[in-house]
Amino acid sequence: MEEDRTKNEAAIRELIDNYAKAVRAKDIDGVMSVYDPEIVAFDVVPPLQYLGAEAFRKPWQEVFDRYQSPIHYEVRDLSTIAGDDLAFSHSLNRISGTMKNGQKTDLWLRSTACYVKTNGKWRIVHLQVSVPADLGNGKALLDLKP
Amino acid sequence: MEEDRTKNEAAIRELIDNYAKAVRAKDIDGVMSVYDPEIVAFDVVPPLQYLGAEAFRKPWQEVFDRYQSPIHYEVRDLSTIAGDDLAFSHSLNRISGTMKNGQKTDLWLRSTACYVKTNGKWRIVHLQVSVPADLGNGKALLDLKP
Repeated sequence: MEEDRTKNEAAIRELIDNYAKAVRAKDIDGVMSVYDPEIVAFDVVPPLQYLGAEAFRKPWQEVFDRYQSPIHYEVRDLSTIAGDDLAFSHSLNRISGTMKNGQKTDLWLRSTACYVKTNGKWRIVHLQVSVPADLGNGKALLDLKP
Repeated sequence: MEEDRTKNEAAIRELIDNYAKAVRAKDIDGVMSVYDPEIVAFDVVPPLQYLGAEAFRKPWQEVFDRYQSPIHYEVRDLSTIAGDDLAFSHSLNRISGTMKNGQKTDLWLRSTACYVKTNGKWRIVHLQVSVPADLGNGKALLDLKP
């Protein structure tokens, strides 16, 4: 049981590693391959929620279209907890690079992912990615660093 | 097994219900009672993360201090998945009311919670609450509705 959990946490970390590689390479199919078709995603960009992987493909494609290759993507303070067929993880993810218009960006995002194992394969069924907000002046806080 | 999961999901929904009641009543101890002491919280307000329940008490106390009673708090589109001792949930939560300075606010938040059962008691070990951001103009999107 304990051994299974260690194995499951290793599988989750491998998934996150492959996901990060796919983001860096702007490999949209690689990114999509870790999502459950029915994923509910609360993304850093609107709307409030994306229902289903097909809908959530669009903001990723827009990111990849805007950036020059490669994208810098770093996963920090990663915590994963895995059971037999459920797991969750959270981390601070830095995404930075140069946009095609020459503008450089560097953004730290909070990321929470929830996973289900079906037929031996782990997939993300829910994801939330965000930056904090200043509720007083309505600004998104895009320059915070851990 | 399947019966246990149904029972566990019912326990999570009861926890969320009690949590909502505590928020409405501005009952800070009721809110804190569902958090694990070691919670890592990515809140709608800065910083990027709150480490531990004691740190995360402060933004809640500030919310309670700013609002007149009662706070309106609604949980919508709730999804919960529970295993034997891990669970996660996500929902859209509306928090609205009148601040002590007379200003009315009405805000929809995306909420993701991750739970661990220890000694028969479910507690939130990780939480992320946010609004989306407009990365073009740097605005937090505070007026989106589901």
